[in-house]
Amino acid sequence: MSSQSKQKHIVIRDVAPAIDQGRFCVKRCVGDHITVSACIFRDGPEVIRARLLWSLEGTERERVPMHKVNPGLDLWEASFTLRDCGRHSYTIIAWTDHYASWVEEFRRKVMGGRTELESERKEGLMLVERCIERSSSSASNEDAALLRQAAEGLRSDKDLNALYEKLSQPALIEAMERLQEHGDLVQYEPAVPIYADRIRGRFGAWYELFPRSQGQDPNRGSSFREAEARLPDIAAMGFEVLYLPPIHPIGLTHRKGRNNTLVAQPGDPGSPWAIGNVEGGHEAVHPELGTVEDFVHYVQRAGELGMEIALDIALQCSPDHPWVKNHPEWFYHRPDGTLKYAENPPKKYEDIYPLNFDSEARAELFAALREIFELWISRGVKIFRIDNPHTKPIDFWEWLIGDIQRSHPEVLFLAEAFTRPPMMKQLAKVGFTQSYSYFTWRNGKEELRAYLEELTSSGLQEFYRPNFFANTPDILHAYLQHGGRPAFMTRLVLAATLSPTYGIYSGFELCENVPVRPGSEEYLDSEKYEIKVRDWDAPDNIKFLVRRVNEIRRHSEALQRFDNLRFLPSSNENIIFYAKSWGEELLLIAVNLDPHHWHDCTVQVPVHELGLPPHYGVEDLLTGARYTWSEHNYVRLDPSLPAHILLVHR
Amino acid sequence: MSSQSKQKHIVIRDVAPAIDQGRFCVKRCVGDHITVSACIFRDGPEVIRARLLWSLEGTERERVPMHKVNPGLDLWEASFTLRDCGRHSYTIIAWTDHYASWVEEFRRKVMGGRTELESERKEGLMLVERCIERSSSSASNEDAALLRQAAEGLRSDKDLNALYEKLSQPALIEAMERLQEHGDLVQYEPAVPIYADRIRGRFGAWYELFPRSQGQDPNRGSSFREAEARLPDIAAMGFEVLYLPPIHPIGLTHRKGRNNTLVAQPGDPGSPWAIGNVEGGHEAVHPELGTVEDFVHYVQRAGELGMEIALDIALQCSPDHPWVKNHPEWFYHRPDGTLKYAENPPKKYEDIYPLNFDSEARAELFAALREIFELWISRGVKIFRIDNPHTKPIDFWEWLIGDIQRSHPEVLFLAEAFTRPPMMKQLAKVGFTQSYSYFTWRNGKEELRAYLEELTSSGLQEFYRPNFFANTPDILHAYLQHGGRPAFMTRLVLAATLSPTYGIYSGFELCENVPVRPGSEEYLDSEKYEIKVRDWDAPDNIKFLVRRVNEIRRHSEALQRFDNLRFLPSSNENIIFYAKSWGEELLLIAVNLDPHHWHDCTVQVPVHELGLPPHYGVEDLLTGARYTWSEHNYVRLDPSLPAHILLVHR
Repeated sequence: MSSQSKQKHIVIRDVAPAIDQGRFCVKRCVGDHITVSACIFRDGPEVIRARLLWSLEGTERERVPMHKVNPGLDLWEASFTLRDCGRHSYTIIAWTDHYASWVEEFRRKVMGGRTELESERKEGLMLVERCIERSSSSASNEDAALLRQAAEGLRSDKDLNALYEKLSQPALIEAMERLQEHGDLVQYEPAVPIYADRIRGRFGAWYELFPRSQGQDPNRGSSFREAEARLPDIAAMGFEVLYLPPIHPIGLTHRKGRNNTLVAQPGDPGSPWAIGNVEGGHEAVHPELGTVEDFVHYVQRAGELGMEIALDIALQCSPDHPWVKNHPEWFYHRPDGTLKYAENPPKKYEDIYPLNFDSEARAELFAALREIFELWISRGVKIFRIDNPHTKPIDFWEWLIGDIQRSHPEVLFLAEAFTRPPMMKQLAKVGFTQSYSYFTWRNGKEELRAYLEELTSSGLQEFYRPNFFANTPDILHAYLQHGGRPAFMTRLVLAATLSPTYGIYSGFELCENVPVRPGSEEYLDSEKYEIKVRDWDAPDNIKFLVRRVNEIRRHSEALQRFDNLRFLPSSNENIIFYAKSWGEELLLIAVNLDPHHWHDCTVQVPVHELGLPPHYGVEDLLTGARYTWSEHNYVRLDPSLPAHILLVHR
Repeated sequence: MSSQSKQKHIVIRDVAPAIDQGRFCVKRCVGDHITVSACIFRDGPEVIRARLLWSLEGTERERVPMHKVNPGLDLWEASFTLRDCGRHSYTIIAWTDHYASWVEEFRRKVMGGRTELESERKEGLMLVERCIERSSSSASNEDAALLRQAAEGLRSDKDLNALYEKLSQPALIEAMERLQEHGDLVQYEPAVPIYADRIRGRFGAWYELFPRSQGQDPNRGSSFREAEARLPDIAAMGFEVLYLPPIHPIGLTHRKGRNNTLVAQPGDPGSPWAIGNVEGGHEAVHPELGTVEDFVHYVQRAGELGMEIALDIALQCSPDHPWVKNHPEWFYHRPDGTLKYAENPPKKYEDIYPLNFDSEARAELFAALREIFELWISRGVKIFRIDNPHTKPIDFWEWLIGDIQRSHPEVLFLAEAFTRPPMMKQLAKVGFTQSYSYFTWRNGKEELRAYLEELTSSGLQEFYRPNFFANTPDILHAYLQHGGRPAFMTRLVLAATLSPTYGIYSGFELCENVPVRPGSEEYLDSEKYEIKVRDWDAPDNIKFLVRRVNEIRRHSEALQRFDNLRFLPSSNENIIFYAKSWGEELLLIAVNLDPHHWHDCTVQVPVHELGLPPHYGVEDLLTGARYTWSEHNYVRLDPSLPAHILLVHR
């Protein structure tokens, strides 16, 4: 009798972790321990068995027994550890164990004092004998002996208590479980996918720089070879990822001038996002930056210093991009034959043509776009920051990322989408490893708390990994403009301790904070449109703090995790106080959010819940200072160093 | 070009209301207004249109335009009203409105002061002309004229502001929306089912009685004809549903005696749940109760008095049931040929054989079980109380209820499953109209509040309708045993005001509260096993309160709804205080939970949130007393009448 002709009894539901019932991948990292839970139940009192089946895509499934952890809620669990990078999936099977059900019924009757159990014995004997018959060729000698003993006992043992002991021995129960027919087996569908990234998918300090602005001559962009000179300084600050805006040839037609003026002056380098000219498109390196070999050398040199490269990929073209001539069918044409440039009316971006994802030739376009990624992967790039993904079809990203990661599971994608929440979440669901966030605009205590609680405990944490940038070439927040150096220190500590992945855009460490005009979040003399020369050791820089914070992060497992955040009470609305914990490690972090004044307060540590004694030592990892703390503690924070990162000594 | 060859852009998600993404029916009633919400968005700034499509199963889908109600969250809504009883479904379609998108872009350019818009005009003209071509045969004269005027304007109007006015007139936008190609239309799948019950699915006061115990002779069961005499008295108490335990012939083999003794004495009537003997099975009426015609007459007489019958169907058989002989293949057989009786070891129910839902002949069994329901429906029964559904396969119930309701959409099913929460929820999901609940065991303020909040606002309210029984033939709670008359009044008011569907088992109104032994929830001399004769007007009965409470319920829309409950603060843990509101109607209900002592407290009414003035009049619907209330109010409740049901006079 096939299993389908059997009556279905078992329900498997509320399977977790899962995103949209398994439609999208849960995000985890290699080494993570996954505990799968499910509600599994059936009609009647019969005993259920359940197994978790899991595997890396393309490999054989492993089986893990599930255990009932909360009988009152029919809640079962099993765990496994992700060993490999890539797409995994798991499912659950469950079936009725008729022998164990029979043993339990037998137990209750024997314990209840029943002595006339002949019918029951025959029923048990039938189960055992049927199993002996079924498994005659497959059972081990030990199992076969156990089953024979059980049958013999059921036929002739007089003492019911002793018989029950014999029939309920674990080895026999297990043998019967293995060898019986699993006639009503059900399998949860669809299988639930989990993507295991390498650790960098979750943890890393990013530093964004324009490679052309790493030199000393304001009239000439620096090359990759020249830019290499600054790598040790960046590595010394403790960054793990070096993130570069587009490095391709820049268009000449409608090139933007300094401070985003419509007409470029001779010598203006143009925006790196106006990609492509006669020297090449997305596959090419800007000649002033050097050759592909120079880029590869830069990647290698950064790697030697412990940093890897993240490359910005903007799927758009300058009017001079080779594709405009060679593949006009990949662009939008107006009825009069003109190409549509990018606009956000009344603003025009005449130096940029968007690609037409509705093109009839989009199969070829998609293949060409995929090829760009393959090419840069072959040149050593394993992290891509995607410019404006929310202006391209979501299905395209799901296909692209899935396809690339199938052959390169270690590749990471960061979505630069600043738009409404549903689109940002959907991009994260369809495959983006990390996402930009609203962190830059959350500066008050309550808004920080509300936003972080949404990110870490609303379900978002299963698939949405924010990358907390404290600034970007497009966003110099008013808080930094007006708060000066203390504001930069505050935002650095917040970004670096609230999120395991965070970043700064170069100049942040120098506390650069002059906007192009009041009320704007754009930088004055933005290096998006010109070559910049900086004194990287300018007075009042906060490189010491960047270095210290990144060093603390590298030694703290708690700061390398995201959903282990808990806000704690502080009596001053200018001081935010939170705990990060992992295993035995416990950090207590207090930050003064007011860059203009010192503040003090009482912070509360729930010592009982956190398993702390009434008094315990804490060490400020930023300064080395040590204190004895208890449940309620006095904190005073000065703008000169507006944070404590306190390690609890247990 | 087919829609499938088009690039997909639009995402429709977070569609509500829906149970498990449309796997199971949302429960509503005829007349209910359904507001469907969804998150609908796409890449880029293009304008989206969306329609809600809904229908009663088997009828043509109606279309309702959806509107964006929260642009920041891409949240759309549309509403419709359920006019018919039965299974409905809805889905959502959405597409890009290219003309509206173009008009919006044109507007922003014109408003931004751009004057050179020749390319844009040609683009708009192409959209309009393509639409004229497509719709030449289908467009109305008015639409065709509008389109021609638009095309003409795009060709020759000089004044851009006036042209924009012409192109953005609502009639034109609407015509273009209708007549344009909806090339990237997406449809949400799967369609979301909603079951619309008649109002009785949500609202009704139930009275359970044993028809054999309605007479005056303790040595002889009363017949339906005799039982009719008591119907006016029950109707006068205000009940809407009269619920009868099984009325079939009762087995003789292993018949249980009084107080559930193992051996019946001559004349003992046996348990009605031991169904079937030589006189017939589930299709038959117990001869002492009368004929099928007598039953039909009883149903009709109850109907004349405003009550309908709910019949208990227990899918199990006494050893004497005709099926045992005629269909032995529908039962469990031990290897020695004996039939398995029902057990909950060490307890035995030797008077009952369970049916074997795993039988090889279960197709025939299922058909026979279905036939039972059809038969009783033909005899006037539209409500079935199902005994122990959790001991039968869940799939069976999904099939049975779906199949019956397809031809009898007005039929209601009540699940009598007292088991763990996952099974109780699953039975409600697969189709049971109503469910028994844990209400009987929730007597303290906090446990009542926590349980009611779970039932009314955790998502359960979309599919799980509890029927709050204050007692049952199986459950005489210790609270009633020890609390006496005040406890009965308290539990009556709680059941009748916390849930629109509630019930009592006869004897409750007489405050019968003697258990078979201390610590048991079983009644002494339970009428499950013997004929009972009662004085239905015994002293100290609370029929006056039952009548008054049921009258209040009939006149209160707020008490006929379930998820309109809100607990409010009271300063005494013995007094529970809550509001029920619907439209302008607002009830404030305070109940003393301590049957032994009077209590007083201050209750808080959030006047501002509830739209009340600082002072307002309230009328106790139980007593007619009137008070002037404000935000904080003094309440004293005595066990002699332990509740206020206050109607707020606005």
